[in-house]
Amino acid sequence: MSQLLRVQNFTVSSDGFGAGEHQSLERPFGTADPGRLMAWLLATASFPHRAEPGGSRGLDDCLVRDFGTNIGAEIMGRNKFSPHRGPWTDLEWQGWWGDEPPFHTPVFVLTHHPRPSFTLSDTTFHFVDGDPATVLGTVKEAAQGRDVRLGGGATTIREFLDADLVDTLHVAVVPLELGSGARLWESPDELLDRFHCDVVPSPSGVTHHLFWRK
Amino acid sequence: MSQLLRVQNFTVSSDGFGAGEHQSLERPFGTADPGRLMAWLLATASFPHRAEPGGSRGLDDCLVRDFGTNIGAEIMGRNKFSPHRGPWTDLEWQGWWGDEPPFHTPVFVLTHHPRPSFTLSDTTFHFVDGDPATVLGTVKEAAQGRDVRLGGGATTIREFLDADLVDTLHVAVVPLELGSGARLWESPDELLDRFHCDVVPSPSGVTHHLFWRK
Repeated sequence: MSQLLRVQNFTVSSDGFGAGEHQSLERPFGTADPGRLMAWLLATASFPHRAEPGGSRGLDDCLVRDFGTNIGAEIMGRNKFSPHRGPWTDLEWQGWWGDEPPFHTPVFVLTHHPRPSFTLSDTTFHFVDGDPATVLGTVKEAAQGRDVRLGGGATTIREFLDADLVDTLHVAVVPLELGSGARLWESPDELLDRFHCDVVPSPSGVTHHLFWRK
Repeated sequence: MSQLLRVQNFTVSSDGFGAGEHQSLERPFGTADPGRLMAWLLATASFPHRAEPGGSRGLDDCLVRDFGTNIGAEIMGRNKFSPHRGPWTDLEWQGWWGDEPPFHTPVFVLTHHPRPSFTLSDTTFHFVDGDPATVLGTVKEAAQGRDVRLGGGATTIREFLDADLVDTLHVAVVPLELGSGARLWESPDELLDRFHCDVVPSPSGVTHHLFWRK
């Protein structure tokens, strides 16, 4: 079986935004409240940074568990990795995830401002510049036969969708309007010419959209 | 996190039967037509014995992929392993799954008629006798910190449910009546005193029931 490029657990507002405007160190999701946007994910037993025991083990949890299944590497945008823009002024910044990032594979950060790779626990971050197809070729090699996860944000996912490189997408739509920010879509229907889609309402209130290539 | 005992992808008819009567070598599911009972599973891209490429990658596939996630061992009933009953007359029988069984872990077959263990590819089959709690203790040790899958059939799952040893159950209910056979339940509501349950209709026509302990 060929290696897939997969989006997992990407969460957007009902009007299609993955984050609000004005991302900063204090507000990784900008004007969007991550506690509300990510509530479905935070409530699951398998959420990687879950502090206390407990949590749901139903539909949402099954999708959260799928985050790492057969994944050999991740591609993420610069804005997922860091609140900073432009040339790196602070190489001390090593991402939002502390000493034990939840990736457990190589992670490739797209940026026009390369910097040296570094390793935290079992995750190594690399910094790459290039068009989506070229970067994907490099990352598939690093994934050693397993799939590649496209981690977001919205702008990065759009670039790979526009280059027709995405094989499957799981997007959780939250009943919450943001009005502005980083937009994934105007409507999920935009993808139906190229993808099958299962639309699955969860008892938690989010609606999972599971797309796969026609 | 403690080790869970999990049922994955167990499929029953709308009246609660996991297989029809009169199981035999020719009819592993007895009077039930496996092509109809298991159609939802066979249509997914991740079904382990899938012959040709293609297949769906939506909700059903996500649940099928979860079959092996963090699983370290399986427990199955004698009737899942073999169509034979009583003392073993044919040690040549090594299960239904050919040279490459889809388990990839130790598998413990419950039987009053022990026989020597054997290995096919990366799956070793052991044969054990004992009450559910004692067997589960042995199997958790073999799973080396990972979860244990309870593989069925219906009678075996009932025994572990009655002993209150099951932590999560995924049951797919197929819109098809069998009328008789190996019964899991009269109704899924029987479990609601002890379990939370997400009831999730799939676009494929089956209804997934995802139970987890209260």
